[in-house]
Amino acid sequence: MSRPAHKRPEYHKINKDLFVLTYGALVAQLCKDYEKDEDVNKYLDKMGYNIGTRLVEDFLARSCVRRCHSYSEIINIIAQVAFKMYLGITPSVTCHNSSRNEFSLILHKNPLAEFIEELPAGRSALCYCNLLCGIIRGALEMVNLAANVTFLQDRLKGDSVTEIGITFLKKLDEKKYRRKK
Amino acid sequence: MSRPAHKRPEYHKINKDLFVLTYGALVAQLCKDYEKDEDVNKYLDKMGYNIGTRLVEDFLARSCVRRCHSYSEIINIIAQVAFKMYLGITPSVTCHNSSRNEFSLILHKNPLAEFIEELPAGRSALCYCNLLCGIIRGALEMVNLAANVTFLQDRLKGDSVTEIGITFLKKLDEKKYRRKK
Repeated sequence: MSRPAHKRPEYHKINKDLFVLTYGALVAQLCKDYEKDEDVNKYLDKMGYNIGTRLVEDFLARSCVRRCHSYSEIINIIAQVAFKMYLGITPSVTCHNSSRNEFSLILHKNPLAEFIEELPAGRSALCYCNLLCGIIRGALEMVNLAANVTFLQDRLKGDSVTEIGITFLKKLDEKKYRRKK
Repeated sequence: MSRPAHKRPEYHKINKDLFVLTYGALVAQLCKDYEKDEDVNKYLDKMGYNIGTRLVEDFLARSCVRRCHSYSEIINIIAQVAFKMYLGITPSVTCHNSSRNEFSLILHKNPLAEFIEELPAGRSALCYCNLLCGIIRGALEMVNLAANVTFLQDRLKGDSVTEIGITFLKKLDEKKYRRKK
């Protein structure tokens, strides 16, 4: 049943605006529920984690990605296949250190924040799109890749781009994270 | 800038699963926040209403729908253009009364509930997808069409199909709801 991402049938796609507005309603609800931005961020991350653990199986089945041999390859698949498939964008990738386990995804556009210009009043520490970090973290953990995933820059906070930092926490062990046949 | 729905560029589409799982997280959060199912239903409807009031402008711009002359035409546009555009499905339409202001949208598939088999334990009165009713109600109100929109049947409650009932509340006045040029 698996097929290349670009050949997936149309019924797997929906209009982005509905998702973006629904996500906005979710964040607004959490802001009502939790006074501290840190708690909202934590909760979005946790929700995202749960979503990521469920999405990853479907992603592997549909994307037909092959076994990766380095963190660079994994990051490129996240950027070029996963982001493209789920959000319709392709972030650019940078690597921060010589041991090649710290990366950034640079989002020049952020569909999730398309309808908002700035953070809500009194919510300056809110990571509005923190669900994304949780999703990436959850999906990676399901293939035995522990990682820290956080926003390093955010256009909603006045930065020029939105940047998600991903730091892989373990030494790479090919056998563990390769895709099951 | 307007263009036919079927020619909209690919970047307006995202993967459905991400939306469906995020919606599930939203409903779960509301179930935590509100003890009574009726309150969750009410809140989902209210959230949907706000989303509908924002989506409608974009919908009219993109869909290039022409002025409608009857409630039947409006219902068919909701089913064949709006549902197709936003959820990738086309519900069938039935009309209930001779004055032709009461309709049903029959959803043989419901993408929003794709990942759940049944309602959560102790939540038998939950209208899981009530956001949809709110969206339709909000969008219609923005074009001066007051309507009641509720779930009449729900597969999640053991019914054979999911049915959304739409009752238009006012006598039709062409001038009021036609699309602005």
